[in-house]
Amino acid sequence: MKRIAIIGYGNIGKYVLEALEVAPDMEIAGIVRRSVSGEMPLELTPYKVVTDVKELGKVDGVILATPSRSVEENAKKYLAMGINTADSFDIHGNIWDLHESLGAVAKANNSVAIISAGWDPGSDSVIRTLLQAAAPKGLTWTNFGPGMSMGHSVVARSKKGVKNALSMTMPQGAGIHSRLVYVELEDGFTAQQVYDELKADDYFAHDELHVIPVDSVDNCRDMGHGVLLERKGVSGKTQNQRFKFEMTINNPALTAQILVGSIRATFKQQPGAYTMPEVPMMDLLPGDKEQLIRALV
Amino acid sequence: MKRIAIIGYGNIGKYVLEALEVAPDMEIAGIVRRSVSGEMPLELTPYKVVTDVKELGKVDGVILATPSRSVEENAKKYLAMGINTADSFDIHGNIWDLHESLGAVAKANNSVAIISAGWDPGSDSVIRTLLQAAAPKGLTWTNFGPGMSMGHSVVARSKKGVKNALSMTMPQGAGIHSRLVYVELEDGFTAQQVYDELKADDYFAHDELHVIPVDSVDNCRDMGHGVLLERKGVSGKTQNQRFKFEMTINNPALTAQILVGSIRATFKQQPGAYTMPEVPMMDLLPGDKEQLIRALV
Repeated sequence: MKRIAIIGYGNIGKYVLEALEVAPDMEIAGIVRRSVSGEMPLELTPYKVVTDVKELGKVDGVILATPSRSVEENAKKYLAMGINTADSFDIHGNIWDLHESLGAVAKANNSVAIISAGWDPGSDSVIRTLLQAAAPKGLTWTNFGPGMSMGHSVVARSKKGVKNALSMTMPQGAGIHSRLVYVELEDGFTAQQVYDELKADDYFAHDELHVIPVDSVDNCRDMGHGVLLERKGVSGKTQNQRFKFEMTINNPALTAQILVGSIRATFKQQPGAYTMPEVPMMDLLPGDKEQLIRALV
Repeated sequence: MKRIAIIGYGNIGKYVLEALEVAPDMEIAGIVRRSVSGEMPLELTPYKVVTDVKELGKVDGVILATPSRSVEENAKKYLAMGINTADSFDIHGNIWDLHESLGAVAKANNSVAIISAGWDPGSDSVIRTLLQAAAPKGLTWTNFGPGMSMGHSVVARSKKGVKNALSMTMPQGAGIHSRLVYVELEDGFTAQQVYDELKADDYFAHDELHVIPVDSVDNCRDMGHGVLLERKGVSGKTQNQRFKFEMTINNPALTAQILVGSIRATFKQQPGAYTMPEVPMMDLLPGDKEQLIRALV
């Protein structure tokens, strides 16, 4: 039994708890939060909730259920203590830098980090890599949605005249997306004003945009998401090889499950940092190799 | 540049040649055939064609483009010489035994085998493993076709009254398949007689079967194939996570491309035998890790 702690207890943290509770080979060492004052969610009653991992006894690995921007600092701290980490860092442009920085700390301290282990980056990255190998020349399109974009929702909420907002990513095909932004308007503001504000922001400037006023943003919220990943390419000298991967999922539940598989996989890697395509998929699973090969290969 | 030899030159061998010709990091050492007498295919003119790999100088790896039943014997021979192997052994029930037997020889001789590296087993196995990790509880259905089944075609051709036959695998959904067998009949035989013969054979007994007489089986032949792989399962405690992988491909071209990626990956593994889910997908690709991570993760 590996003893795993959850770092942070927001949306992802809740689902990580559930996934760890049903994992046959892991024990929940506890939850590390910034503060332990205030009301405690009922489901945490059976567990130690602390502000410092050292209060949890032996911990083999931690799952970072913290925002992407705090992953590097957190991961380095645990890796330096010899504790393995799994995170779902999702700022695509900075993944290589995180790989380098966590890799150095992990190697120096005999620990392992699996980084950017959600569904995109994460399982989608594995599919993209596999399809690149299956048809080395060609084009891949990743279409997201329909689903909520946390990043875009946060930006929309920061605009003048917006009480609350929810930004939906809508797939238009071939990797092109539009944004539907559902807003609760402040008195005296119009959808057109919010549209103009958003269009002036680099975050929204490049996509088709629709601003839709609603009475309650909260009543529109749903954690379902989806992906359609397509590749059309050439195997050897043979054209028109077609591949499609599609999913419709509960977003935080899938992220959490992938994180749990990834922390498991850390215990099977050499010290260092890895993205998911650098890890054998079999390592994500519990159980006996012979049985897994008989069932899955 | 790794020097790679192709063992066997049937249908798969031809496509392996094409995939190696366009691989940026590999050189074709030559082709090993049982006999070098008789007419030589034009595309082999630039290459050494021999009956013994020792005539090819230094060889780093071989791709076994031989029938499944001769994979074990062949692979052991090369692994014992310290040469890495990749094969597309496709008898699902015997993969674990092959894993054990090649693994022992490989470890003893400091070589690496990647086994069952086609599309099923092979890339489909990687997808099944990934989806098992994404939703550990649930059901996976692998639907094949429409496409030619080599094994069933061979059995059909062996029946009384059959001059030539082509067995198509037709997906019925949820992993259930029917067989359409296109036959050239010998004089005096009927489709019903062939149907009865086939139904008495364990190979055909369990599936819906249709026997269709044609004038020319050869005119029906096409190497296109397809897969629809579906999983519906539970991530953590969240139900109804839905995944779908679909492809329509030239069958030997995809098998050959996966074999070429797999022989490349052998050079990045510790001595032993591996199925594809035991290998990081990144290892199938040529090129620089930083660039690959930036492009694919």
